[in-house]
Amino acid sequence: MPTDPLSATFSALADPTRRAILARLASGECSVTELAEPFEMSLPAVSKHLRVLERAGLIARRRDAQRRPCRIEAGPLEDVANWTERYRHLWEARLDRLATYLRHVKTKERTHARKPQRRK
Amino acid sequence: MPTDPLSATFSALADPTRRAILARLASGECSVTELAEPFEMSLPAVSKHLRVLERAGLIARRRDAQRRPCRIEAGPLEDVANWTERYRHLWEARLDRLATYLRHVKTKERTHARKPQRRK
Repeated sequence: MPTDPLSATFSALADPTRRAILARLASGECSVTELAEPFEMSLPAVSKHLRVLERAGLIARRRDAQRRPCRIEAGPLEDVANWTERYRHLWEARLDRLATYLRHVKTKERTHARKPQRRK
Repeated sequence: MPTDPLSATFSALADPTRRAILARLASGECSVTELAEPFEMSLPAVSKHLRVLERAGLIARRRDAQRRPCRIEAGPLEDVANWTERYRHLWEARLDRLATYLRHVKTKERTHARKPQRRK
């Protein structure tokens, strides 16, 4: 079982249903019943996913009479964004290489396109 | 077991040793033996982590005589960055609220600091 907070966050995010629940909560607080509807899942199944998200600190729940509305918590998502940020240079370098290659191809095409005109 | 690529990526990242391996590979290709050294881990234990990272597309390995050097692959990390990006407004909104609160506290402090001077 993961123990450090970032591992717990990544582990909780490694499920498409849990990511869909977060996407739903990003537009506002809602109840377990409201969350269960679009997923066509049983309430216990949704509750299980919510417990995983809650343990990872990705959602929080409050008491409101009979309801226990859930809301998304931004902190762990910001931690993931900050973690990935240190690797940004890797994919930007890849994009730079692609841009250089495309410029090279374009220059070559232009040179080839010009040559026959000169021979006229 | 996770099947979609993003779940496989998050699942592979949910381990501090695998994240440390990626951090090491971000500064350049290296062999399994070189990777095992700083972690004081057995070669089979490191190999097991490398297999998880390879299945998630986070690293690639090539043949080079007896060696099989590993390199980091930026694609899945970029996918994680893009995924978190849609939640950026959440923590930025939180920072905005904090800034508003701090401005409010500062204004209040200034008002309180001025009052006794007027009474002199």
